[in-house]
Amino acid sequence: MARFEATRVLRFGDCDPAGIAYYPRYFDLLNGVVEDWWISMGHPWKMLFGERRIGLPTVRFEVDFRAPAFLEDELRFVLSVKRIGSKSVELDHVVQRGATTLWQCAQTLVVTSLDTHRSIAWPDDLRAALVSFQEA
Amino acid sequence: MARFEATRVLRFGDCDPAGIAYYPRYFDLLNGVVEDWWISMGHPWKMLFGERRIGLPTVRFEVDFRAPAFLEDELRFVLSVKRIGSKSVELDHVVQRGATTLWQCAQTLVVTSLDTHRSIAWPDDLRAALVSFQEA
Amino acid sequence: MARFEATRVLRFGDCDPAGIAYYPRYFDLLNGVVEDWWISMGHPWKMLFGERRIGLPTVRFEVDFRAPAFLEDELRFVLSVKRIGSKSVELDHVVQRGATTLWQCAQTLVVTSLDTHRSIAWPDDLRAALVSFQEA
Amino acid sequence: MARFEATRVLRFGDCDPAGIAYYPRYFDLLNGVVEDWWISMGHPWKMLFGERRIGLPTVRFEVDFRAPAFLEDELRFVLSVKRIGSKSVELDHVVQRGATTLWQCAQTLVVTSLDTHRSIAWPDDLRAALVSFQEA
Repeated sequence: MARFEATRVLRFGDCDPAGIAYYPRYFDLLNGVVEDWWISMGHPWKMLFGERRIGLPTVRFEVDFRAPAFLEDELRFVLSVKRIGSKSVELDHVVQRGATTLWQCAQTLVVTSLDTHRSIAWPDDLRAALVSFQEA
Repeated sequence: MARFEATRVLRFGDCDPAGIAYYPRYFDLLNGVVEDWWISMGHPWKMLFGERRIGLPTVRFEVDFRAPAFLEDELRFVLSVKRIGSKSVELDHVVQRGATTLWQCAQTLVVTSLDTHRSIAWPDDLRAALVSFQEA
Repeated sequence: MARFEATRVLRFGDCDPAGIAYYPRYFDLLNGVVEDWWISMGHPWKMLFGERRIGLPTVRFEVDFRAPAFLEDELRFVLSVKRIGSKSVELDHVVQRGATTLWQCAQTLVVTSLDTHRSIAWPDDLRAALVSFQEA
Repeated sequence: MARFEATRVLRFGDCDPAGIAYYPRYFDLLNGVVEDWWISMGHPWKMLFGERRIGLPTVRFEVDFRAPAFLEDELRFVLSVKRIGSKSVELDHVVQRGATTLWQCAQTLVVTSLDTHRSIAWPDDLRAALVSFQEA
C-alpha cells in the first residue's frame, strides 16, 4: 500500500510540564504532515484554500496513544489512504519512534466549499490525485 | 448525571486561514476544561503533577466534529464521567454553541507515575473525588 | 490613565518542560487580551476581520520578562494606550501575579486593509473608540 | 560573523484568519530554531533541561515585523550571536523570504538553574560552545 512518510523532531514547544508530548501539539504536527502530503500530490493548500476556496476539515478522529514521546525524540509519521468516498477520504496514521508505535489514528476528512462550509463532491483533479496516490 | 460545564470564546488564535476553529486548538481548549474540572474537584494539576508526580495522560480519543465554529463564537463544554476504571477514567465531552452540538468526544485518561510513565491504581483521594463527582 | 484588565489562569498547555510559562503562549494570551479589549470597545474582530476586511497586525514588540510564572498562576493583564497615530496605536502591557510584575511589553499595531495588507488611516469609528478609551 | 541558518515552511497551523502568519507561532518557530542551534553545538536541550537542570529563559525581545508571510511561504531563519555575557547571551535573528526581510529580532537569554529559576554563570562547556560558535 502506498504510504507518505514524514519525520519530525519533538521540540521543546511540543512538550508539557510532565516532560512528554502535549497531545494538542501532536494534532498540530499531524495536520502539518497531512498538509505536506497534499503538497507532495501537487495540491498545496495555498491553492486549495486560497484560490479555489476548497476546505478539507476533519469530521472524525479515532486515536490511540500507546507510549509517551520525550523531548527531541525523532518521530516518523506514516500516512496511508484507507478509503476514498465521494465527498471524503479516510486516512490511517501511524507514528513511530524507531520500531515502537507511539500512537496511531484514523482520520476522516471531507471536502467542503469555504463559501458555504458544506461538503461537496471531490473536484476531479483532487480525486484523481488521491486515487493515483492510493494505487502507487 | 453530574456534569461539569465551562464556557470559552473562540479567539482569533484558535482559528485558521479557513476562518473556522483549528482542531488542534480545540484539543488545547478541551485540555484546559479537563484541568479546570480537576481544580473544581479540589485537585489542581500543580499539586498532582508538581508535588505528587502523578500524570493523567490521554490514551484514547474518539471525536466527531459535526459543525464548524467561527471567530468569537461562544462555546459551552459539557463534561461527564462515563466510567471509572481501576487505573483510568472515561469522559464524555459535548461542545455546543447555543442548541447546536459542534463536536463531541469520548476521552480515556489513565493515571500514571511521572517517574516511570507507567499506569498506577488511582490514589484513594483521587478515586473518591471522581466517584463523588459522578454521584453528585 | 484608562486601563483594560483581564485575568488568565496559566494552564498546563501554556507551560513548558521546565515547568514555567512557554513564552510563545504568553503572546497567544496577550493577543486574546487585545481581542477582548476590542470587543469591550464595541469592535469585535469578527466584524473587523470578517466583514470590514480590516487587519490589526503587530509591527513592533519590546518585551521584558522579569520573573517566571508557574502552572495555574493567576495572571492579571493590564493594557493601556500610549499613543494613537494616524495609522497605528501603541499599547503598554503589564502582566502581574499579585503585586509582582512578571513581564511587560510595548506593542505597536497598525491598521491595514486585508485585501492589500498595506496600512491605512484609522476608520473614523475605530479612531473614535481608541480616543474615547484613552480619555475615559 | 558566524551564523546558524534554518528553513521552515509556514504551515496552515501557523496562519490566522487574516491569512497571514500568527505572531505567537513565529515565536514558537523561533524557539525551535534556537533549540536546533543548541543541538548543532552539541548541547541538546534534553540534556540541559532534563539531566543538568539548566534552563535558558528569554528575558528580553525587541522585534520588528516588516512584511507579512503567507501560507506555505518558505522562511529562512538566520541566527547570530551579538554578545556573550557572564550569565546571558544576546542573539540577533533575521527571518527572510527570498531577499525580503520579513522580521527581525534581538533576543536575550539567561542561563538559570531549573531548581531555583535564578540566573547562574555559564557552565564552562556551554560558554566554550558559544565562544567557539561566535569565532567560527
